[in-house]
Amino acid sequence: MPFVHVHMWEGRTVEQKRALTKAITDAMVEHAGANPDALHVAISEYPRENWARAGVLGIDRKDV
Amino acid sequence: MPFVHVHMWEGRTVEQKRALTKAITDAMVEHAGANPDALHVAISEYPRENWARAGVLGIDRKDV
Amino acid sequence: MPFVHVHMWEGRTVEQKRALTKAITDAMVEHAGANPDALHVAISEYPRENWARAGVLGIDRKDV
Amino acid sequence: MPFVHVHMWEGRTVEQKRALTKAITDAMVEHAGANPDALHVAISEYPRENWARAGVLGIDRKDV
Amino acid sequence: MPFVHVHMWEGRTVEQKRALTKAITDAMVEHAGANPDALHVAISEYPRENWARAGVLGIDRKDV
Amino acid sequence: MPFVHVHMWEGRTVEQKRALTKAITDAMVEHAGANPDALHVAISEYPRENWARAGVLGIDRKDV
Repeated sequence: MPFVHVHMWEGRTVEQKRALTKAITDAMVEHAGANPDALHVAISEYPRENWARAGVLGIDRKDV
Repeated sequence: MPFVHVHMWEGRTVEQKRALTKAITDAMVEHAGANPDALHVAISEYPRENWARAGVLGIDRKDV
Repeated sequence: MPFVHVHMWEGRTVEQKRALTKAITDAMVEHAGANPDALHVAISEYPRENWARAGVLGIDRKDV
Repeated sequence: MPFVHVHMWEGRTVEQKRALTKAITDAMVEHAGANPDALHVAISEYPRENWARAGVLGIDRKDV
Repeated sequence: MPFVHVHMWEGRTVEQKRALTKAITDAMVEHAGANPDALHVAISEYPRENWARAGVLGIDRKDV
Repeated sequence: MPFVHVHMWEGRTVEQKRALTKAITDAMVEHAGANPDALHVAISEYPRENWARAGVLGIDRKDV
């Protein structure tokens, strides 16, 4: 541990995921005193039809 | 917040997801006093080989 | 299955949780064709210091 | 309930998933007194670009 | 990784948790080829008012 | 969305949580193009008897 689970839209590039997981790991080490060797970051990606805000699916919104 | 995460079989139509996330949002607003603008509902879909009940995978069951 | 996981602030009453889980269950049965006997709804409650929106903790916000 | 959620790399065979969910179910019944009929085990699979340890993605590691 | 997340009622003893996490770990190593050093098992415990099956809270059921 | 869920030991101070959720939010905006207003970060804290690595509970380990 710790385990950080990112839930977001699908579509980020590998390079974005590489930078993102590195930055989250750095934040966990700096601010939460995490041991990097035991720190895992996982990303779950969702199609826009599988996420709603205010009861409206992503495919039906303009702003998310 | 809040965040409501639905885990279910794959295969629902977009129209079902639209109605489902709307109904869950309404339930959260009515019964939990949620602010819709901050309320997200996400759906994770699983193939039947990735879910077991009573130790038996969905592909090996008749009733789930 | 399915499994619906609600993440929200702490502080709702038992009566609210009773009505909320019932309404979510009804939504799952009506819109997703779920079998109620296999349908579980769990609630995780968070103190306001354990949730941030836009990078600001709940204890530091007025609107969440 | 209970609900056991396994997060792992993609790529296990159906036979491995069948044995794994059975063994986890047995562990829950034996050690936690779970009722099998109410016990669900779900598997989420991740591509190697969606999981980092120590800030390094699976596609960039040799040992995970 | 992997990460196994157990969601269950509160109330198990430390000894039960010790045996349970050990058994789940063994199952992951044997059936999923997991590397134990990278394998984490976490337990989230729920009061009976925070979990419903078939739309009925645990505090209102006899059988869960 | 997105939703970032941090699972870690209990015991961080409010100031640590404030800095951590801010840093994770910044990482999501910079590297994943997230809209801050729709970005939530939640923290779940675990006692050391509720988390095992390599099949050994936190209360039985020296290094986690």
